[in-house]
Amino acid sequence: MVRITLIPLEEFQRVRTASIDKYERLALIADMCRANTLASVKRAGSGHLGSSFSAMDIVVWLYYEEMNTVAVGLDHPDRDIYFSSKGHDVPGQYAVLFSLGILPKDQFIKLRRLEGTCGHPDVSTSGIEANSGSLGMGISKAKGMAFAKRLGGYQGRVFVMNGDGEMQEGQVYEALQTATHQRIANISLIIDHNKVQSDRPVREICDLGDLETKLQTFGWHVARCDGHDFRQLEKVFAEFKAITDTPKVLIADTIKGRGVSFMEHPAALKAGGGLYRWHSGAPDDLFFTDAYQEIITRINARMTKLELSPLVLEEVTPEDKGARTVSCEYVADAFGQALIDIAAEREDLVVLDSDLAADCRIRAFELKYPERFIENGIAEQDMVSMAGGLALQGLLPVVNTFAAFLAARANEQIYNNACEQTKIVYVCHYAGLIPAGPGQSHQSIRDISLVGALPNLAVIQPCNAVETRMAVEYCVKEAEGSCVLRLIIGPSPRIIELPPGYRLELGRGVTLVDGSNAVLFAYGPIMLHEALLAAEILRESNFHLKVVNMPWINRVNTDWLQEVIDTCRALFVLEDHAPVGGLGDTLLNALMASDLMSVRHFRKFAVEGYPAWGTPSEVLKYHGLDGASLAARILETRNVAPPLSRNWPFPGER
Amino acid sequence: MVRITLIPLEEFQRVRTASIDKYERLALIADMCRANTLASVKRAGSGHLGSSFSAMDIVVWLYYEEMNTVAVGLDHPDRDIYFSSKGHDVPGQYAVLFSLGILPKDQFIKLRRLEGTCGHPDVSTSGIEANSGSLGMGISKAKGMAFAKRLGGYQGRVFVMNGDGEMQEGQVYEALQTATHQRIANISLIIDHNKVQSDRPVREICDLGDLETKLQTFGWHVARCDGHDFRQLEKVFAEFKAITDTPKVLIADTIKGRGVSFMEHPAALKAGGGLYRWHSGAPDDLFFTDAYQEIITRINARMTKLELSPLVLEEVTPEDKGARTVSCEYVADAFGQALIDIAAEREDLVVLDSDLAADCRIRAFELKYPERFIENGIAEQDMVSMAGGLALQGLLPVVNTFAAFLAARANEQIYNNACEQTKIVYVCHYAGLIPAGPGQSHQSIRDISLVGALPNLAVIQPCNAVETRMAVEYCVKEAEGSCVLRLIIGPSPRIIELPPGYRLELGRGVTLVDGSNAVLFAYGPIMLHEALLAAEILRESNFHLKVVNMPWINRVNTDWLQEVIDTCRALFVLEDHAPVGGLGDTLLNALMASDLMSVRHFRKFAVEGYPAWGTPSEVLKYHGLDGASLAARILETRNVAPPLSRNWPFPGER
Repeated sequence: MVRITLIPLEEFQRVRTASIDKYERLALIADMCRANTLASVKRAGSGHLGSSFSAMDIVVWLYYEEMNTVAVGLDHPDRDIYFSSKGHDVPGQYAVLFSLGILPKDQFIKLRRLEGTCGHPDVSTSGIEANSGSLGMGISKAKGMAFAKRLGGYQGRVFVMNGDGEMQEGQVYEALQTATHQRIANISLIIDHNKVQSDRPVREICDLGDLETKLQTFGWHVARCDGHDFRQLEKVFAEFKAITDTPKVLIADTIKGRGVSFMEHPAALKAGGGLYRWHSGAPDDLFFTDAYQEIITRINARMTKLELSPLVLEEVTPEDKGARTVSCEYVADAFGQALIDIAAEREDLVVLDSDLAADCRIRAFELKYPERFIENGIAEQDMVSMAGGLALQGLLPVVNTFAAFLAARANEQIYNNACEQTKIVYVCHYAGLIPAGPGQSHQSIRDISLVGALPNLAVIQPCNAVETRMAVEYCVKEAEGSCVLRLIIGPSPRIIELPPGYRLELGRGVTLVDGSNAVLFAYGPIMLHEALLAAEILRESNFHLKVVNMPWINRVNTDWLQEVIDTCRALFVLEDHAPVGGLGDTLLNALMASDLMSVRHFRKFAVEGYPAWGTPSEVLKYHGLDGASLAARILETRNVAPPLSRNWPFPGER
Repeated sequence: MVRITLIPLEEFQRVRTASIDKYERLALIADMCRANTLASVKRAGSGHLGSSFSAMDIVVWLYYEEMNTVAVGLDHPDRDIYFSSKGHDVPGQYAVLFSLGILPKDQFIKLRRLEGTCGHPDVSTSGIEANSGSLGMGISKAKGMAFAKRLGGYQGRVFVMNGDGEMQEGQVYEALQTATHQRIANISLIIDHNKVQSDRPVREICDLGDLETKLQTFGWHVARCDGHDFRQLEKVFAEFKAITDTPKVLIADTIKGRGVSFMEHPAALKAGGGLYRWHSGAPDDLFFTDAYQEIITRINARMTKLELSPLVLEEVTPEDKGARTVSCEYVADAFGQALIDIAAEREDLVVLDSDLAADCRIRAFELKYPERFIENGIAEQDMVSMAGGLALQGLLPVVNTFAAFLAARANEQIYNNACEQTKIVYVCHYAGLIPAGPGQSHQSIRDISLVGALPNLAVIQPCNAVETRMAVEYCVKEAEGSCVLRLIIGPSPRIIELPPGYRLELGRGVTLVDGSNAVLFAYGPIMLHEALLAAEILRESNFHLKVVNMPWINRVNTDWLQEVIDTCRALFVLEDHAPVGGLGDTLLNALMASDLMSVRHFRKFAVEGYPAWGTPSEVLKYHGLDGASLAARILETRNVAPPLSRNWPFPGER
């Protein structure tokens, strides 16, 4: 494990109080925050560096020079407010909050850990003013804050940071328009125009055109400057302060990855053959060491020049992330490959993406079938309605993005398409609780409920690569209506073994482990892994849990159901979802409709409340959904005697 | 009943084949279509006249002069495609389709009837190319159509009509941006710039600014002309045809209500004291007669001048809309009044609207508390996130729009707010199946399921004015978390009587009619009316149905539940919602968790499939949800013997 060090708070205090030029001090602090950001992301094993670095100088300027927030206090109604709408630059903001003593060290170093900070902003963290991470909501929220200040007669300005890729989201334009009309002038929007979105230049994904003129036509006062030049920032914000009758926007020209030579986008894009690799994820040990050294060396050189002694660093102990095996299997890889294979014979198949081609494993499709690949930028609603138009003209669109964004942001568009009775395949990537580091904005535990009331739409979540291919084949070739394919984004904890000769059949799951004491239904690689663990643990207590993989989340064949529950009187359902609207409700309804419920006990294990953030192990445990917790919860029901049940769930007991 | 006449197809054929000036002919046809639109809306008793009339000349130009659609056929892959994104102008389009022989008379005259045409476009109707009615999706769909034409190597242009108010929807800007980037040039967008949205001028609701320059900054070729001048339209579309490398948009300056002097917006706004009253709804007999006479007189005068004999009109028989009593109660009125009353003592209460202030009954609040009223225009996502910002700053936002738009369009924004654990009241107006005339885009039978997985959000649907006030009080004063208040938009079929001394208590419903054979849970004025009717009918068969009003859709007190179901072995739930994700699932889960299900039969009556359009009576019957159908369906279950049940549901039988 590589050694990770932190620049402690005292060092920031030393620099803050040193008698040096203001701009020199700010440059030092920004770089010190970059070093700490890098350390925290490395320690977390994931996080967004490129965007944290491009926005860093602006965030430092705001907190150190522009805003009254630190002076008046975080709860003061007259405080200035800053928050990031793009949200993934929050590791950088945490570093700034740490440098000001707002965020305690213990929390700061625990990026993406249960007791630390979230991968995207969450108001439960000190200094965070709004939840974000799903794009496009920030200006609207800022409008609400500014309106409240005006209504309450409070002072304080509202600053909000957008990404440039974020300017592809339609809500941004709603807010630009209404802010002007509603005369909400007390907003300073900063567009961190770093020119690169998740892994490709903005101008390639969806060009923004003449952004200055565009913003002017929405009635905003527009300024543009170098977002790494404190003198220019100072000038712009002074200008903004004087303008009180119109909302203001700064297009800040920045460099993604600013501060680490090989992460800066011009160099990084070249090195990546056109792809930017430092948007998210932690660098490996070698890259980390190089990057960290580069920043520290620069800081120390600058300090020497300013006659300050070099930085004293503090070692940070690495933390146990919880033992967790993973396999080499990614179901999304199987999905991507299946798409390519099927596309060879199905010329009507077109694939849509909203700036997540790498994560959704459709880049290979894009390269192989560029004429049938539609890059839509970060505009989910447009993507889904465009798919509707494609389907009306006889094509079969396969729509890709994260489940949280697809099922929620474009929900009405999915409904509208469904009303037309065309066929579309919606692929909900990053479905479920895990990975939990990015937080609530990205974890998708509602997507099944969001499409559940659409009668002609089947939701399928495959458990491994083999079943994923079967599911893709079903969606494209067999399904009469539209489908939602629900896929986890990370590696499968284990490769779920399906019985030889298994075929995916509508409404029928498959028993993975037999058992006579109770049945546990689950789906997807994450939860089936935990279910199998639970069965293994329970076997030691002589409790035989039948584990059933049920990939059909909202379709069930009741003959099969009756067969599989057999004489089992205890039925459990493990959801990679909230308790409402998932597989449990499907099964419960099917059981009731078939009069299969009498003298049976039924219980769901689901993501209760809002999903916690952290490592997979700690979050699964937090929600009581890891194998050990599940086993304990199942044994617990030993004491719950359902009425009229005999010998349940333990033969011979009572 | 006023006499309603139609200009028959033969008369259109006479004018089409007459040797007259092209522009004269078009003007005649447009006015003839206006007359027929008016007749169909009058016959339906509702429909959108203002917008149908403003768009009429453009639609006539497209079908009669511009497009190849009629010539090559509606299924031809090389056909030109026209559809309206705003959708509420579809009565006008139906009149044009009727005039061309595409829409049969029997269907045309049945606007908003089960076997006729839908209040908003539906692809099951001949000549309709896309479903619309919820705003902002059209350009995206047109993009899909144009992309498909390009990929398939097909000819044909794609024309799509937007409203000017619709330009407030963010998805529009997503589509404008991506169309340019994706080089989808084969789109001609027409903005029917009639300057008035639902009942007020666009510039008052949310000004569009310099629309021409704005559209240009999105990379579109922009033209502007008088949308009632065929010569100008001819010129613009000829120009568009020649431009093949960029998408094109025509800002068509039109007059809302064009063709009927008192419906034309300059006069109508004046007459309405700033409010436009002809956006939706049929005119009364007097206004209808005046309007119809005005159009027919103008047509005949023009025909005489052209040496054509006057129009021969065909009488249309009025149709029975099904006997249906309504009370004078509107729960939305009670909501609006309660808001005003509570606002006097609660200074933190702010009300948000998205251009539906009249329908949502919050205009009185707007007038009384203008400083606490936020008009957001047709921008639901922005409205909801703005509410989030208001709540973060300590205010209590009450967010208003139709359920279909609020719960679906702004779903991710609602989730984001909920994650912040602030308190917001979302008011889902026009919830449920009825009125069914506007069709699927407006009927909201998924909203409960769309918020069901949010753990800190209670959904309440009150049954009458009294309970509505209690619900508003609860949401504002008592609820700890956010709430969804679900309200029907129309008059209550009857005033539901609550027992004396009834108080709204969390998770507890109330028995309206006692009965020992079975329990029927229902909510809201529409379905409780049908439930009570069913109980009355069943009583004649000596079947005593207990009817329970359960306003808490996703909260249930199990002690109360146990008490209310008592020894009843048959439990029924009547949903004003799809079968998935409504009250039925809440109760089923509560019953299972409390081991109350044994030897009971459980069945939901819900809106299966997609909601039909038509009158309330015919649509309730279509879905088997009217009192008579419910009674029959309940009696039907006499033959379903749940296992282990004795004497069920008829004591003494088996």
